[in-house]
Amino acid sequence: MTQPSSAATSFRAIDVIRKKRDGIELSGYEIEALVHAYTKGDIPDYQVSAWLMAVVLRGMTRPETAALTDAMLRSGEVLDLSSLPNRKVDKHSTGGVGDKTSLVLAPLAAAAGVTVPMISGRGLGHTGGTLDKLEAIPGFNVNLAVAEFRRVLEVCGCAMIGQTAEIAPADRKLYVLRDVTATVESPYLICASIMSKKLAEGIDALVLDVKTGSGAFMKSEKDAAFLAELMVETGERMGKQVVALITDMDQPLGNMIGNALEVVEVIEVLRGGGPADLRDLCLELAGWMLHMGGVTKSVAEGKQQSAHLLSSGKALEKFREMVQLQGGDPRSIEDTRKLPHASYTTTVVASRSGFIGSLQCEQIGTACVILGGGRERKEDSVDPAVGIVLHKKVGDRVDAGEWLATIHYNAESRAQRTKQLIEESCEISDALPASTRPLVHRVIGKSGEKR
Amino acid sequence: MTQPSSAATSFRAIDVIRKKRDGIELSGYEIEALVHAYTKGDIPDYQVSAWLMAVVLRGMTRPETAALTDAMLRSGEVLDLSSLPNRKVDKHSTGGVGDKTSLVLAPLAAAAGVTVPMISGRGLGHTGGTLDKLEAIPGFNVNLAVAEFRRVLEVCGCAMIGQTAEIAPADRKLYVLRDVTATVESPYLICASIMSKKLAEGIDALVLDVKTGSGAFMKSEKDAAFLAELMVETGERMGKQVVALITDMDQPLGNMIGNALEVVEVIEVLRGGGPADLRDLCLELAGWMLHMGGVTKSVAEGKQQSAHLLSSGKALEKFREMVQLQGGDPRSIEDTRKLPHASYTTTVVASRSGFIGSLQCEQIGTACVILGGGRERKEDSVDPAVGIVLHKKVGDRVDAGEWLATIHYNAESRAQRTKQLIEESCEISDALPASTRPLVHRVIGKSGEKR
Repeated sequence: MTQPSSAATSFRAIDVIRKKRDGIELSGYEIEALVHAYTKGDIPDYQVSAWLMAVVLRGMTRPETAALTDAMLRSGEVLDLSSLPNRKVDKHSTGGVGDKTSLVLAPLAAAAGVTVPMISGRGLGHTGGTLDKLEAIPGFNVNLAVAEFRRVLEVCGCAMIGQTAEIAPADRKLYVLRDVTATVESPYLICASIMSKKLAEGIDALVLDVKTGSGAFMKSEKDAAFLAELMVETGERMGKQVVALITDMDQPLGNMIGNALEVVEVIEVLRGGGPADLRDLCLELAGWMLHMGGVTKSVAEGKQQSAHLLSSGKALEKFREMVQLQGGDPRSIEDTRKLPHASYTTTVVASRSGFIGSLQCEQIGTACVILGGGRERKEDSVDPAVGIVLHKKVGDRVDAGEWLATIHYNAESRAQRTKQLIEESCEISDALPASTRPLVHRVIGKSGEKR
Repeated sequence: MTQPSSAATSFRAIDVIRKKRDGIELSGYEIEALVHAYTKGDIPDYQVSAWLMAVVLRGMTRPETAALTDAMLRSGEVLDLSSLPNRKVDKHSTGGVGDKTSLVLAPLAAAAGVTVPMISGRGLGHTGGTLDKLEAIPGFNVNLAVAEFRRVLEVCGCAMIGQTAEIAPADRKLYVLRDVTATVESPYLICASIMSKKLAEGIDALVLDVKTGSGAFMKSEKDAAFLAELMVETGERMGKQVVALITDMDQPLGNMIGNALEVVEVIEVLRGGGPADLRDLCLELAGWMLHMGGVTKSVAEGKQQSAHLLSSGKALEKFREMVQLQGGDPRSIEDTRKLPHASYTTTVVASRSGFIGSLQCEQIGTACVILGGGRERKEDSVDPAVGIVLHKKVGDRVDAGEWLATIHYNAESRAQRTKQLIEESCEISDALPASTRPLVHRVIGKSGEKR
């Protein structure tokens, strides 16, 4: 193993590793050279993994984080959507359990006249993924080429696809390496990974939904706020309008967890109904998207208009249009019994009377993975039909023997383990929980001042 | 890149990386499994380099350091010299400029009845290496197989070779990776690297010469003492008697720097002469080797006996014997003009009168590398003949125009750069330096109490 030579004699990977190791700020040039050389294959994995570990333990300054984001963004294609008339706004969530807001928000904001070019990911670990949910709709194609993606956007104002090979290839290569070297958990690297992909979409503004609580990657609000501030500042340094909402993920969002079940719940919301927490968060996020998309003068007005688009059926109509344009079967929206459904159901009942004190959210997400509805490893396939329907949420009154949850399953052995996990995750107490956590904990970003 | 699977399902490299990243102490089993799997090629470089960086930034506890040393030691052959009657004692130096004590100490201690199985390294960077010095003796073979090494030891009581493929292969593999990932500079990793190789020699006791000052890797005495304590404790945990002397390397040791020139100076000391600092340090270290080798009751007595072995010519006779047994030409010891010598010499003269205030020791080492007498990269070959002879040391009075140093060179262009470096490294002041640094700063280790 000899020091790999680089065409650019002024750049040596080992010097960049050493500087980061010693806590010295890297220049934009050094970061760009490292990312560029790694993407091209000119620097070996073993040097980059040492550098990543130094980043995890030494951190990064704001200019370093922006430089890393920029280098990753420019490692691939940046969509130019400037020919589309409306403002381009996207929403990104750091991930949670039952978090299906993207499927509501894209058609909802598009129905209001905002263009939503949404590039999403798959579920990993205890959290679900937007692409897996979309693929529960028979025929829905998330693998559109860039030209098709643009055409769907032009026709209906929103489109939802997976990451393409052209978008931020540096992120894909780095993520694979981070995954096997315990260098995933760094807010700086998470920020650069998220923001490089989102800013490659050619958007004008971005609404970030940063989750906190027992079902989020960032369990503490402090960590969530730190990541949110980092992402907002990084986006602003790159000339974008960014706002971050720190929202609650201490219990699942809505009542349904599992891909097809979540599509059912999305359709309920798009029909003007659905569970209150899910509907409220969708309206909150949509309010920001409409405001930042230049459609309304305020967030409050954006929420109002969004509520109207739900009750009038216009958002649902937009959803149907997008589904059809992306190859999905629109009849499964009119009649959700046409969505995949599991062969069996079983229920979890309350062992005693009282109030739901807490729901261990990550465990419930894991329960869905055990059913086959999520992935433990990236190469796993998912069963769209399985999942969990919660009949009680935190603060609800429950009687002994009453149903807490229904499990939709295809394999008996998996159902048993799931049942036990859900029983354990549901704490029943004598008294109402002292206080309920708000849905939106904080709003971060300069754009928030205009609220 | 997928998580490499391991036959031992209970061990996953990523878990060990994550624990070290998070500052959690690793078990001996985890460290052993990591080193074992890496040596076998079951874990990729990119995981180990991330782990190494985490070690550099998080450090290691004493039990972890001992476990790492033990795992590296047991990655290869451990010599069993128990059939040899005398106690086996070695000396190791952390490296400096003009540090040629090993060539004096091995025959000196052997002449006193201590067995010295010395496995040494080559020069890298500004420091010289014992193997390069030995190879300046025509015919001297440092690449003996273990059986030959043992035979030389049996016959004459000392033998000096390079690391064999059988000794601590984990260290060799790890060092190559550390070298290209900026993970060399960790006292824990340095300790494990040194101690694993030394303890594989099958010794009973070890005298460590830990250098501090401008020509040492550890510039500050604090860092040198930390490494020394770590090595002493690690050796003791593994049942060996270990002592460490923190010695001065703020100016070159002796007057000669360069491989053949250093052999000349070694022979001067073995003949009972030589420069005072070099002779004094040799007697100090030999005193410890004789005492720990069970030959004398005290270190002072060991020094006394060593001085006698020098003046009587018995140490020189032992050196000649070893040289001959290892294929070297003994006539080059009787007549040092038979050693390689450079084609040209030039002198560096004092620009003004005064006292030598300081000698930038690392720069003088680098000057010798520039002449071709050392290595910038491991694959470089060395010119044994070139080097520098210092005529003045710190504290010496000097008149304008008087010789400061003689440069022995084979290439004019290299001589010019060397001359300039030596002029710059030599500071002449009006007054004597306020205080002179002692040769031995401190002695560390329980064995030191018996002094």
